[in-house]
Amino acid sequence: MPKTKRKQHDNAMAAGPAQQGQQLKGRLWLEREGQTYLSWGRVVLLERIKEKGSVSAAAKSMGMSFSHAWQLVESMNSLAPEPLVQKQAGGKGGGGAWLTPAGDQAVGEFWDLVQGFQQWIDTQKQ
Amino acid sequence: MPKTKRKQHDNAMAAGPAQQGQQLKGRLWLEREGQTYLSWGRVVLLERIKEKGSVSAAAKSMGMSFSHAWQLVESMNSLAPEPLVQKQAGGKGGGGAWLTPAGDQAVGEFWDLVQGFQQWIDTQKQ
Repeated sequence: MPKTKRKQHDNAMAAGPAQQGQQLKGRLWLEREGQTYLSWGRVVLLERIKEKGSVSAAAKSMGMSFSHAWQLVESMNSLAPEPLVQKQAGGKGGGGAWLTPAGDQAVGEFWDLVQGFQQWIDTQKQ
Repeated sequence: MPKTKRKQHDNAMAAGPAQQGQQLKGRLWLEREGQTYLSWGRVVLLERIKEKGSVSAAAKSMGMSFSHAWQLVESMNSLAPEPLVQKQAGGKGGGGAWLTPAGDQAVGEFWDLVQGFQQWIDTQKQ
Protein backbone atom coordinates (compact mmCIF):
# COMPACT_ATOMS: atom_id res chain seq x y z
CA MET A 1 0.00 0.00 0.00
CA PRO A 2 1.25 3.46 -0.79
CA LYS A 3 1.84 5.23 2.49
CA THR A 4 3.75 7.93 0.75
CA LYS A 5 1.15 10.58 0.22
CA ARG A 6 3.84 13.17 -0.19
CA LYS A 7 5.80 11.10 -2.62
CA GLN A 8 2.85 10.46 -4.88
CA HIS A 9 2.25 14.15 -4.97
CA ASP A 10 5.85 14.87 -5.92
CA ASN A 11 5.74 12.25 -8.59
CA ALA A 12 2.83 13.77 -10.47
CA MET A 13 3.80 14.29 -14.09
CA ALA A 14 0.50 15.59 -15.30
CA ALA A 15 -2.34 17.23 -13.46
CA GLY A 16 -5.80 18.17 -14.61
CA PRO A 17 -7.67 21.32 -13.70
CA ALA A 18 -9.32 21.42 -10.29
CA GLN A 19 -12.97 20.45 -10.73
CA GLN A 20 -15.18 20.95 -7.71
CA GLY A 21 -12.13 20.85 -5.50
CA GLN A 22 -10.84 17.66 -7.09
CA GLN A 23 -7.78 17.17 -9.26
CA LEU A 24 -6.75 14.20 -11.38
CA LYS A 25 -3.02 13.48 -11.40
CA GLY A 26 -0.86 10.83 -12.89
CA ARG A 27 2.52 9.61 -13.93
CA LEU A 28 3.99 7.58 -16.75
CA TRP A 29 7.12 5.55 -17.17
CA LEU A 30 8.64 3.18 -19.66
CA GLU A 31 9.93 -0.25 -18.78
CA ARG A 32 12.25 -2.58 -20.62
CA GLU A 33 12.87 -6.14 -19.48
CA GLY A 34 10.48 -5.49 -16.59
CA GLN A 35 12.66 -2.70 -15.22
CA THR A 36 12.19 1.05 -15.14
CA TYR A 37 13.85 2.42 -18.25
CA LEU A 38 12.68 6.02 -18.55
CA SER A 39 10.79 8.02 -15.97
CA TRP A 40 10.44 11.67 -15.14
CA GLY A 41 13.60 11.78 -13.01
CA ARG A 42 15.67 9.78 -15.47
CA VAL A 43 14.71 11.98 -18.39
CA VAL A 44 15.44 15.15 -16.44
CA LEU A 45 18.84 13.63 -15.64
CA LEU A 46 19.47 13.07 -19.36
CA GLU A 47 18.53 16.69 -20.06
CA ARG A 48 20.85 17.95 -17.36
CA ILE A 49 23.70 15.83 -18.69
CA LYS A 50 23.15 17.44 -22.07
CA GLU A 51 23.06 20.89 -20.50
CA LYS A 52 25.94 20.49 -18.02
CA GLY A 53 28.26 18.21 -20.00
CA SER A 54 28.93 15.75 -17.19
CA VAL A 55 27.13 13.24 -15.01
CA SER A 56 28.53 14.80 -11.84
CA ALA A 57 27.35 18.33 -12.69
CA ALA A 58 23.97 16.98 -13.76
CA ALA A 59 23.61 15.02 -10.51
CA LYS A 60 24.63 18.04 -8.45
CA SER A 61 22.08 20.25 -10.16
CA MET A 62 19.35 17.79 -9.14
CA GLY A 63 20.54 17.26 -5.57
CA MET A 64 21.26 13.65 -6.49
CA SER A 65 24.32 11.69 -5.42
CA PHE A 66 26.85 11.06 -8.14
CA SER A 67 26.72 7.32 -7.55
CA HIS A 68 22.95 7.25 -7.91
CA ALA A 69 23.09 9.29 -11.12
CA TRP A 70 25.82 7.05 -12.49
CA GLN A 71 23.74 3.98 -11.65
CA LEU A 72 20.74 5.47 -13.49
CA VAL A 73 22.83 6.23 -16.55
CA GLU A 74 24.26 2.70 -16.54
CA SER A 75 20.73 1.31 -16.21
CA MET A 76 19.41 3.39 -19.11
CA ASN A 77 22.40 2.60 -21.31
CA SER A 78 22.17 -1.13 -20.68
CA LEU A 79 18.40 -1.31 -21.19
CA ALA A 80 18.32 0.87 -24.32
CA PRO A 81 18.75 -0.70 -27.76
CA GLU A 82 21.78 1.59 -28.07
CA PRO A 83 23.40 3.79 -25.40
CA LEU A 84 21.71 7.10 -24.59
CA VAL A 85 24.73 8.67 -22.89
CA GLN A 86 28.35 8.60 -23.91
CA LYS A 87 30.94 9.19 -21.22
CA GLN A 88 34.55 10.16 -21.33
CA ALA A 89 36.81 9.09 -18.47
CA GLY A 90 37.87 12.13 -16.47
CA GLY A 91 41.27 13.75 -16.48
CA LYS A 92 42.04 16.81 -14.42
CA GLY A 93 38.69 18.41 -15.10
CA GLY A 94 36.62 15.31 -14.49
CA GLY A 95 34.94 13.25 -17.15
CA GLY A 96 32.56 14.58 -19.71
CA ALA A 97 29.27 13.12 -20.83
CA TRP A 98 26.83 13.86 -23.60
CA LEU A 99 23.72 12.45 -25.17
CA THR A 100 23.93 10.27 -28.23
CA PRO A 101 21.41 10.82 -31.04
CA ALA A 102 19.45 7.91 -29.50
CA GLY A 103 19.50 9.77 -26.16
CA ASP A 104 18.20 12.96 -27.74
CA GLN A 105 15.46 10.99 -29.44
CA ALA A 106 14.47 9.16 -26.24
CA VAL A 107 14.16 12.46 -24.36
CA GLY A 108 12.01 13.99 -27.10
CA GLU A 109 9.75 10.98 -27.36
CA PHE A 110 9.27 10.80 -23.61
CA TRP A 111 8.15 14.44 -23.39
CA ASP A 112 5.81 13.84 -26.34
CA LEU A 113 4.21 11.04 -24.34
CA VAL A 114 3.93 13.27 -21.28
CA GLN A 115 2.37 16.02 -23.35
CA GLY A 116 -0.20 13.61 -24.77
CA PHE A 117 -0.89 12.35 -21.27
CA GLN A 118 -1.43 15.88 -20.02
CA GLN A 119 -3.87 16.46 -22.88
CA TRP A 120 -5.73 13.26 -22.03
CA ILE A 121 -5.95 14.28 -18.37
CA ASP A 122 -7.22 17.73 -19.34
CA THR A 123 -10.16 16.20 -21.17
CA GLN A 124 -11.31 13.97 -18.29
CA LYS A 125 -14.43 14.75 -16.37
CA GLN A 126 -13.66 13.62 -12.87
CA MET B 1 14.38 10.62 -7.05
CA PRO B 2 12.47 7.37 -7.25
CA LYS B 3 14.78 4.64 -6.07
CA THR B 4 11.92 2.23 -5.72
CA LYS B 5 12.00 0.41 -9.03
CA ARG B 6 9.96 -2.40 -7.57
CA LYS B 7 7.41 -0.09 -6.06
CA GLN B 8 6.81 1.78 -9.28
CA HIS B 9 6.26 -1.51 -10.98
CA ASP B 10 3.75 -2.57 -8.35
CA ASN B 11 1.96 0.72 -8.62
CA ALA B 12 1.28 0.43 -12.32
CA MET B 13 -2.42 0.82 -12.95
CA ALA B 14 -2.33 0.58 -16.68
CA ALA B 15 0.21 -0.95 -19.01
CA GLY B 16 0.49 -0.84 -22.75
CA PRO B 17 1.49 -3.70 -25.00
CA ALA B 18 5.18 -4.46 -25.22
CA GLN B 19 6.53 -2.76 -28.33
CA GLN B 20 10.03 -3.66 -29.33
CA GLY B 21 10.73 -4.81 -25.81
CA GLN B 22 9.37 -1.60 -24.31
CA GLN B 23 6.25 -1.08 -22.26
CA LEU B 24 4.49 2.11 -21.25
CA LYS B 25 3.03 2.08 -17.76
CA GLY B 26 1.30 4.61 -15.61
CA ARG B 27 -0.83 5.41 -12.66
CA LEU B 28 -3.56 7.85 -11.79
CA TRP B 29 -4.90 9.30 -8.59
CA LEU B 30 -7.31 11.96 -7.45
CA GLU B 31 -6.42 14.67 -4.99
CA ARG B 32 -8.59 16.97 -2.93
CA GLU B 33 -7.18 19.86 -0.93
CA GLY B 34 -3.73 18.86 -2.18
CA GLN B 35 -3.97 15.42 -0.57
CA THR B 36 -4.41 11.98 -2.05
CA TYR B 37 -8.13 11.29 -2.09
CA LEU B 38 -8.57 8.21 -4.30
CA SER B 39 -5.87 5.93 -5.61
CA TRP B 40 -5.68 2.33 -6.68
CA GLY B 41 -5.15 1.03 -3.13
CA ARG B 42 -7.82 3.24 -1.62
CA VAL B 43 -10.43 2.20 -4.17
CA VAL B 44 -9.61 -1.49 -3.73
CA LEU B 45 -10.06 -0.93 0.02
CA LEU B 46 -13.51 0.55 -0.62
CA GLU B 47 -14.43 -2.45 -2.75
CA ARG B 48 -13.25 -4.86 -0.08
CA ILE B 49 -15.26 -3.01 2.58
CA LYS B 50 -18.32 -3.44 0.39
CA GLU B 51 -17.54 -7.11 -0.11
CA LYS B 52 -16.50 -8.00 3.44
CA GLY B 53 -18.80 -5.74 5.44
CA SER B 54 -16.14 -4.36 7.77
CA VAL B 55 -12.96 -2.30 7.70
CA SER B 56 -11.05 -4.96 9.64
CA ALA B 57 -11.98 -7.80 7.26
CA ALA B 58 -11.22 -5.58 4.27
CA ALA B 59 -7.81 -4.64 5.70
CA LYS B 60 -7.01 -8.26 6.50
CA SER B 61 -7.86 -9.35 2.95
CA MET B 62 -5.33 -6.84 1.64
CA GLY B 63 -2.58 -7.61 4.15
CA MET B 64 -2.99 -4.08 5.49
CA SER B 65 -2.99 -3.13 9.16
CA PHE B 66 -6.36 -2.21 10.59
CA SER B 67 -5.06 1.15 11.76
CA HIS B 68 -3.77 2.04 8.29
CA ALA B 69 -7.05 1.03 6.67
CA TRP B 70 -8.99 3.00 9.25
CA GLN B 71 -6.80 6.03 8.60
CA LEU B 72 -7.40 5.76 4.85
CA VAL B 73 -11.16 5.53 5.37
CA GLU B 74 -11.09 8.57 7.66
CA SER B 75 -9.02 10.44 5.06
CA MET B 76 -11.43 9.61 2.22
CA ASN B 77 -14.49 10.40 4.31
CA SER B 78 -13.15 13.75 5.40
CA LEU B 79 -11.95 14.78 1.94
CA ALA B 80 -15.10 13.65 0.09
CA PRO B 81 -18.04 16.05 -0.31
CA GLU B 82 -20.02 13.43 1.60
CA PRO B 83 -18.77 10.28 3.37
CA LEU B 84 -17.98 7.26 1.19
CA VAL B 85 -18.04 4.73 4.03
CA GLN B 86 -20.47 4.41 6.90
CA LYS B 87 -19.29 2.58 10.00
CA GLN B 88 -21.12 1.01 12.88
CA ALA B 89 -19.32 0.76 16.21
CA GLY B 90 -18.55 -2.87 17.01
CA GLY B 91 -20.30 -5.02 19.58
CA LYS B 92 -19.31 -8.61 20.19
CA GLY B 93 -18.85 -9.35 16.50
CA GLY B 94 -16.87 -6.22 15.71
CA GLY B 95 -18.18 -3.18 13.86
CA GLY B 96 -19.67 -3.23 10.41
CA ALA B 97 -18.98 -0.90 7.51
CA TRP B 98 -20.55 -0.34 4.12
CA LEU B 99 -20.34 2.04 1.20
CA THR B 100 -22.74 4.95 0.91
CA PRO B 101 -24.26 5.71 -2.51
CA ALA B 102 -21.51 8.35 -2.83
CA GLY B 103 -18.94 5.63 -2.10
CA ASP B 104 -20.37 3.35 -4.76
CA GLN B 105 -20.33 6.21 -7.23
CA ALA B 106 -16.75 7.17 -6.41
CA VAL B 107 -15.56 3.59 -6.97
CA GLY B 108 -17.37 3.35 -10.30
CA GLU B 109 -16.06 6.68 -11.54
CA PHE B 110 -12.51 5.84 -10.54
CA TRP B 111 -12.53 2.57 -12.50
CA ASP B 112 -14.03 4.43 -15.47
CA LEU B 113 -11.04 6.79 -15.35
CA VAL B 114 -8.64 3.86 -15.13
CA GLN B 115 -10.32 2.16 -18.09
CA GLY B 116 -10.03 5.32 -20.17
CA PHE B 117 -6.40 5.63 -19.13
CA GLN B 118 -5.72 2.06 -20.20
CA GLN B 119 -7.32 2.79 -23.57
CA TRP B 120 -5.17 5.90 -23.97
CA ILE B 121 -2.03 3.92 -23.12
CA ASP B 122 -3.00 1.21 -25.61
CA THR B 123 -3.07 3.75 -28.41
CA GLN B 124 0.37 5.21 -27.75
CA LYS B 125 3.25 4.53 -30.04
CA GLN B 126 6.23 4.41 -27.78
